[in-house]
Amino acid sequence: MLLACGIAEQNVNVTPACPCLRGWLDGWWVFIYEKGYQSTDTAISSVFTKMKGVGYTNIKGSERVWDVADYVFPPQGDSSFVVMTNYIITEGQKMGKCPELDGKHNCSSNADCEGGSFKRTGHGQMTGVCLNTTKTCEVLAWCPIEDDVMIPDPPMLMSAENYTLFIKNSVTFPTFGVSRSNLVENIDNSYINKCLYDPTHAPLCPIFRLGDIVKLSGFKFETIARVGGAIGIVVDWTCNLDVDIKHCKPKYTFHGLYGNAAETDQARASVGYNFRYAKHYMEDKEQKRTLLKVFGIRFDIIVQSLARKFDIIPTLTAIGSGVGIFGVATVVCDLVLLYLLPKREFYKNMKFKYTDSHVQDPDSEACSTETEVCKK
Amino acid sequence: MLLACGIAEQNVNVTPACPCLRGWLDGWWVFIYEKGYQSTDTAISSVFTKMKGVGYTNIKGSERVWDVADYVFPPQGDSSFVVMTNYIITEGQKMGKCPELDGKHNCSSNADCEGGSFKRTGHGQMTGVCLNTTKTCEVLAWCPIEDDVMIPDPPMLMSAENYTLFIKNSVTFPTFGVSRSNLVENIDNSYINKCLYDPTHAPLCPIFRLGDIVKLSGFKFETIARVGGAIGIVVDWTCNLDVDIKHCKPKYTFHGLYGNAAETDQARASVGYNFRYAKHYMEDKEQKRTLLKVFGIRFDIIVQSLARKFDIIPTLTAIGSGVGIFGVATVVCDLVLLYLLPKREFYKNMKFKYTDSHVQDPDSEACSTETEVCKK
Amino acid sequence: MLLACGIAEQNVNVTPACPCLRGWLDGWWVFIYEKGYQSTDTAISSVFTKMKGVGYTNIKGSERVWDVADYVFPPQGDSSFVVMTNYIITEGQKMGKCPELDGKHNCSSNADCEGGSFKRTGHGQMTGVCLNTTKTCEVLAWCPIEDDVMIPDPPMLMSAENYTLFIKNSVTFPTFGVSRSNLVENIDNSYINKCLYDPTHAPLCPIFRLGDIVKLSGFKFETIARVGGAIGIVVDWTCNLDVDIKHCKPKYTFHGLYGNAAETDQARASVGYNFRYAKHYMEDKEQKRTLLKVFGIRFDIIVQSLARKFDIIPTLTAIGSGVGIFGVATVVCDLVLLYLLPKREFYKNMKFKYTDSHVQDPDSEACSTETEVCKK
Repeated sequence: MLLACGIAEQNVNVTPACPCLRGWLDGWWVFIYEKGYQSTDTAISSVFTKMKGVGYTNIKGSERVWDVADYVFPPQGDSSFVVMTNYIITEGQKMGKCPELDGKHNCSSNADCEGGSFKRTGHGQMTGVCLNTTKTCEVLAWCPIEDDVMIPDPPMLMSAENYTLFIKNSVTFPTFGVSRSNLVENIDNSYINKCLYDPTHAPLCPIFRLGDIVKLSGFKFETIARVGGAIGIVVDWTCNLDVDIKHCKPKYTFHGLYGNAAETDQARASVGYNFRYAKHYMEDKEQKRTLLKVFGIRFDIIVQSLARKFDIIPTLTAIGSGVGIFGVATVVCDLVLLYLLPKREFYKNMKFKYTDSHVQDPDSEACSTETEVCKK
Repeated sequence: MLLACGIAEQNVNVTPACPCLRGWLDGWWVFIYEKGYQSTDTAISSVFTKMKGVGYTNIKGSERVWDVADYVFPPQGDSSFVVMTNYIITEGQKMGKCPELDGKHNCSSNADCEGGSFKRTGHGQMTGVCLNTTKTCEVLAWCPIEDDVMIPDPPMLMSAENYTLFIKNSVTFPTFGVSRSNLVENIDNSYINKCLYDPTHAPLCPIFRLGDIVKLSGFKFETIARVGGAIGIVVDWTCNLDVDIKHCKPKYTFHGLYGNAAETDQARASVGYNFRYAKHYMEDKEQKRTLLKVFGIRFDIIVQSLARKFDIIPTLTAIGSGVGIFGVATVVCDLVLLYLLPKREFYKNMKFKYTDSHVQDPDSEACSTETEVCKK
Repeated sequence: MLLACGIAEQNVNVTPACPCLRGWLDGWWVFIYEKGYQSTDTAISSVFTKMKGVGYTNIKGSERVWDVADYVFPPQGDSSFVVMTNYIITEGQKMGKCPELDGKHNCSSNADCEGGSFKRTGHGQMTGVCLNTTKTCEVLAWCPIEDDVMIPDPPMLMSAENYTLFIKNSVTFPTFGVSRSNLVENIDNSYINKCLYDPTHAPLCPIFRLGDIVKLSGFKFETIARVGGAIGIVVDWTCNLDVDIKHCKPKYTFHGLYGNAAETDQARASVGYNFRYAKHYMEDKEQKRTLLKVFGIRFDIIVQSLARKFDIIPTLTAIGSGVGIFGVATVVCDLVLLYLLPKREFYKNMKFKYTDSHVQDPDSEACSTETEVCKK
């Protein structure tokens, strides 16, 4: 770049700063900042999760505990799973005929209940009968029908705040043949047994308290536990493999995925996260089920990976590009000087001032280069 | 570019269109079309799905309805799930010894049934006995063995065509600190309660009728419902964050994922989508299960995201590249003129043979190019 | 490039090899090696998996078989699933009060067991009673409490080695409107019924023996079956759509995802893959469950896709870039010659053939620009 500027300076004693600076920036930008001397790879990754903790409910004197096999969906330790924090339970449902909920399929006579038809948000197939007692249509459905109008408040399983999540994540960079686990050096069994993730004091501990995760994502646990929500846990593997592999460590960040935390509930079209789950059983030779409307926090563990390593090919290419832009700057400097600046005629003369020296005539050559000949 | 072309014109009154045009195209291409003045980001995304609708079957007078807890696998509102549209049910299976299906493990004597061995496609472990009644080997298995030769036609749950799918999708662009939900402005509760997705009239309604999805993906519902299939729903978030955020809206497209719709079934090696699912129960102190061979439509919701926003760094880089290529074009023009074109000698003379011709003096012109004048 | 070098040679009979070679490499690199004349697309992909095979256990004379509905989690043929290879079963659990396991909540008196509190790794809520018989606290939990200290060895379901996995994978490149399935040409029903994947002899057969997968990923089946593990199956679709579509075929590779195979177990903080799964049932009007601690192999099927096809836009751009760098090389050659090399003064004279106009001699200056001097 100094050279390119030098040319301009040499010619006209004026340096057009802009294009020179650009060329210089571009060249080094590609090389240093964009790390043009390294090749990159993204990882094949696998995430395994495991919850720990026990919940407790006492409903009208009936105590029970909820362990991991009860509150995690699906059970197999997937990278995306739901932790139940609240629920509406409807026990002993069996196939039969019963009145629809008030507010759905309201009717005043049988004519309002077309037999054999459905409503999109209904619970079953209408039998064609309007029941006088409830003023709703009778339906063939899993009876009794779930009444989900009231969402328990406070949430049934507020204790979920103290559950812990263990994340096991391995990444493999196939191009470089490098494998890493989030259980990096010094994260051994004895450390895991007592550590708890903390952004400043224990940023590598793979055990997370649910309450902490929710807080770090900007949400309030009470709200999210009642109606459900979704939180993304990003595990960021940005690694420079030119330095010691032990510097290749995961970074954890937490993002609320549905709406921003400050948003008021009323403004939102669809709040929370819930789904229905049935446990089937046989009783007295009859098929029955327990229906759970589960409100919970969905956790999505998202692995972002980018490894870089010195490689001769991109290095050469980056040098080439840098040199290219650097060379171009010369041309640009000249162009600006010759055709754009107000004093361009002056610069033009300075630059070209060719004589007839190119004509292959020894005499004329002599004339122009040997002044004494001319003076003669 | 005009300048670069201008140089060529100035020199030789000929503009080599190609390299000039290329330089011009390249420069603007990077800047305008490839949006070189913006930085980009892809989103962290979360998808939550919810089915609504009730199915009804009447098998030999035994009526029942199928609700969302019965026909969606898995239940927790994942971005990839299966909606059951057809099934083969085998009730009351228990561990025991029974004959294999006809066509598997056929035998004429006990010698054909090696005790303790398995066949890859068999249902259990051979006991070593050839049963005379069926002419098949006896196996230790869940008995009675499921007979899945006949697939019900029409499908048991054709009503699935009228089920609706609600998609809740949020995207977060961490670089720009922007979060969006597919429930954009004006998609409020009252709209959601009555709308139904339509590519032209309601392209932002997040409620989709299954029959519509299948049709838009190019498949026929009857076929796909009978044997199962897979459909991808792509939610495309391509956003320019330099304009008002409310223009950042999702676009939905639908793709049949297994084979093309026109393909005949016979040509395909493996048709449909099915899996087996068991519901376990205890009866008379015995472990039993109901086995369902589920044929269904698998929906994969795929989020594609790309946000762009003005950024000074890529802008400078893009300008630099543009200027670079623009400058290069000059050199290229010259090279083509000087070394490639048939009349290159003429151009060469024109370009270099500058004498004092720049001085607008007719005499000096004569002097420098006509050597005899000097000699005079 | 030859031209660019030619210029240098023409001027000074010296070719600075480095920048010329760089320009040449860069230009062709982009065009040929990086395939600058093609546009690219990644696929929308869908994976469907299906296991086949039957396991057999004989525990104290109680024989049973395990079929696909018993050992695959989740059942619906997902791209990520777990095959159970070992388990610890706890039958007939019901809600109640029972002593904690030895090693957790050890106590000597009731004071050690704070009623109503939990421990992170405990199984239930402490009642406040220290049981003399076990010297552990009494907890409200699913009783009896699972004892998972001893992991069965050899694994209960070593027969999993002979299970087969069928992968159905379709990819759609939306930009090019091309769909492919891993059941490519010649992979028809009759072939699938008898083939088994082999890296050299049957690289396109979509049926994989679990034992083969584990071996190809570098692990030992016995180890991974006992404590569980995770294996990634990468399906690579790198396709050049300019040639016949039938050359667009998948390539399968296998990667152990947790730790490297040679690593000793002791060195690892967290070994294996396990989760808990409950089957609920009613017995004598009481809710009970069978708890399974499942050890298994988690398979993640990862699709990597990249299709390329000739496109006029990138071709023009690539040619432009190539020409650009090629042009730049000229400038670079000149710069090196003129300002860097030791003999630069010589080259400078050769190139510009400066007349004495640069010599600060008023006479010579006068001579060349003032024609009357010559005429004199």
